[in-house]
Amino acid sequence: MSQLSTQPYKGTRDFYPKDMRTREWMFGKIREVVQGYGYQSYDGPMLEPFELYAAKTGEEIVNQQLYHFIDRGERKVAMRPEMTPTMARMVAGQFHELPKPIRWFSIPNLWRYERPQRGRLREHWQLNVDVLGGDSLLADAEVLQLAFDLIKKFGGESKIQIKINNRRLMDQLFQKKLGLNEETSQSVSKAIDARDKIGEAKFTEMLDKAGLNTTQKSDLQKFFECDLEGVSRMVAGPGAEELVKLFEYLKESGLSKQVVFDPTVMRGMNYYTGTVFEIYDTSPENKRAMFGGGRYDNLVGLFGKDKISGVGFGMGDVTLQDFLETHKFLPELPRFVDVFVSLPKPEYRVHAEKIAKELREKGFKVMTPLESSGFGVQLKQAVKHEAEYIILFGDDEFAKGQVLVKNLVKNEQKTVDLKLVASSIAVEKQT
Amino acid sequence: MSQLSTQPYKGTRDFYPKDMRTREWMFGKIREVVQGYGYQSYDGPMLEPFELYAAKTGEEIVNQQLYHFIDRGERKVAMRPEMTPTMARMVAGQFHELPKPIRWFSIPNLWRYERPQRGRLREHWQLNVDVLGGDSLLADAEVLQLAFDLIKKFGGESKIQIKINNRRLMDQLFQKKLGLNEETSQSVSKAIDARDKIGEAKFTEMLDKAGLNTTQKSDLQKFFECDLEGVSRMVAGPGAEELVKLFEYLKESGLSKQVVFDPTVMRGMNYYTGTVFEIYDTSPENKRAMFGGGRYDNLVGLFGKDKISGVGFGMGDVTLQDFLETHKFLPELPRFVDVFVSLPKPEYRVHAEKIAKELREKGFKVMTPLESSGFGVQLKQAVKHEAEYIILFGDDEFAKGQVLVKNLVKNEQKTVDLKLVASSIAVEKQT
Repeated sequence: MSQLSTQPYKGTRDFYPKDMRTREWMFGKIREVVQGYGYQSYDGPMLEPFELYAAKTGEEIVNQQLYHFIDRGERKVAMRPEMTPTMARMVAGQFHELPKPIRWFSIPNLWRYERPQRGRLREHWQLNVDVLGGDSLLADAEVLQLAFDLIKKFGGESKIQIKINNRRLMDQLFQKKLGLNEETSQSVSKAIDARDKIGEAKFTEMLDKAGLNTTQKSDLQKFFECDLEGVSRMVAGPGAEELVKLFEYLKESGLSKQVVFDPTVMRGMNYYTGTVFEIYDTSPENKRAMFGGGRYDNLVGLFGKDKISGVGFGMGDVTLQDFLETHKFLPELPRFVDVFVSLPKPEYRVHAEKIAKELREKGFKVMTPLESSGFGVQLKQAVKHEAEYIILFGDDEFAKGQVLVKNLVKNEQKTVDLKLVASSIAVEKQT
Repeated sequence: MSQLSTQPYKGTRDFYPKDMRTREWMFGKIREVVQGYGYQSYDGPMLEPFELYAAKTGEEIVNQQLYHFIDRGERKVAMRPEMTPTMARMVAGQFHELPKPIRWFSIPNLWRYERPQRGRLREHWQLNVDVLGGDSLLADAEVLQLAFDLIKKFGGESKIQIKINNRRLMDQLFQKKLGLNEETSQSVSKAIDARDKIGEAKFTEMLDKAGLNTTQKSDLQKFFECDLEGVSRMVAGPGAEELVKLFEYLKESGLSKQVVFDPTVMRGMNYYTGTVFEIYDTSPENKRAMFGGGRYDNLVGLFGKDKISGVGFGMGDVTLQDFLETHKFLPELPRFVDVFVSLPKPEYRVHAEKIAKELREKGFKVMTPLESSGFGVQLKQAVKHEAEYIILFGDDEFAKGQVLVKNLVKNEQKTVDLKLVASSIAVEKQT
């Protein structure tokens, strides 16, 4: 048989313990913030019926990026490329039992067949945060506040900006102000969404292709140059009113500095119907949307007659980690192994195990060697495994009921009575 | 478009917040125990090259149960049906960098196309615990001790028995004592593995089919009736010696009562080469192997010339949860929402938010309503969301800088100064 490769499948990552600790640290912080707002964790299966994505997930994803196949029972199934459809399915499944508003979060792994590049992999993890059944703009404000608190938790609050727009406002602009039909509106939407990437010349080209005349193009340009007040005059109506109210809430909550109205924010997904937002990294070398979300209506309606409105966002682990690394927000994590209990001679195994057991019961992470050896070898082992402490003992210490506790970080050691080992380390670790 | 189903894909589960809390509680306990032994967490991608499983995973799994397909780049890929091959690939990938012995664990979700039934689903989560590079039997003893501690952590130590055998012993029995060739040995292995399920008559039939004569069958029967001492006489050699030594270690560690030598334990996987074991639920209505593992050699050798021996086990979440439910070891979990901060009038939003923010900073899970309403409605909301406390205030309380803190579990309430809300709840929750 030919030799197997040690590489992971293209566009995916192996998480060695070091990588895993970073991931768990990030997810731990995320969970603290999200659960602090009373959001509850849910999860669904990795495979879903293909139709679940055919319904509302964008064309590009379904046609070019979805992992799908026929199972052994002739069902057409797909590996989830996003979590929102699963969430909508689950909400529809227990619609009447679930207390409203529903505040849910999840950190699933998602699959898309992409060309691997910075910020984009084939398998990534994504925090999904959603409130359903919160029709008032307070839900939009809460989700934005929460997104901000997430970044703040990592120390990044001065490095980001939240750009906010409203789909209802855009619909009014397209239909009432510019007089576009639905097809042209969609083409113009796409052009605006792509503008940052393609540049001004190609953007104008796309508008021309969509059939916009000079007045329409100039109105659009004027719109882009408006602040919120100007927009409220130019395209008065519910969209602008929602935006004004939302900014009032955010100002009250002390978020004025970090949020900005941006009439060019569209968000790709078709299902957004109100507030849309994107969180930008403001550092010049990384100027792009890190993540975003918005308000969607009737997603749950795909599964039956029940209707419920929602607002939420998704934040990917790859983009987040890039952000944290760029700005050096990833701390050095404490050593994983608290104590290495040495084994000087085979006959001391039970003794060493007793010490280890007591330390484990106190919540310490304790490693024991799988063979006995002298001080030097055991010290090397403990250092190699990055233990914070090593417990050493020989015939003398054993006879006196003592051990040597050595702090490998501070390079200090002291002799401690057996009974006091756990409490001595606990006290030292706290200070 | 026809209406979509709200059911999850066959053989999989939706984890609603209630289910998810149970899962997270179980996994949290598991992590505590495993990390207590200094095992570090790792993870790999959900998809692996098909060949990874074709190599060593059993025939039944690859031919009948593996989810595999061709990706958009013409690669033959599979959804992982077990974690060991991924672990072996990763160890081989950083063989020289990783400090030995390697102590790793993971709780991945795994996929097998099975007929869904009690204890078996198509997607399940499985704790994988492995020590690699620990050639001494102390590694086997540690893994068994750890498996026992896991069950103990859930309070189940009196409900289980660990049955232990040794593959080396079985090889000697087959080849030296019974004089079987490799093919016949494998057939007899399979018969022994299936014995509990198929019954004595069918078992004898399988032995006949394998070509065993009367003496061989009678020797096998005698072997089954032996205790460890008898086996050591009947099939003397390294297999029996390992068993004797392992039982000595386990006795020293105080595990005599829960471990038993069982010459009929085989474990299906081909890669086991030494100690094999299974953990049995001893309650009569549930008498079967919950999980198991053993020592394997040269798995890492599939990827190159490096050799390393390992011992480990896998424990599935479905079987574990069945066990915990059967024996009523699942506790009632504390309420998820700590505090519900009410909003009597829209103009108090900032005030309510300030209270919520302070509580969140202290680590509480805090929910706020998305619209203002009277005491009665808010109380109902808090109860519906299963909050432990509700904070109420009206014009009077606001004017005095106070709030009403109501414990919804004990149905007690008191008036508290604003500044003391967080500390008052913290103190009450601790007592």
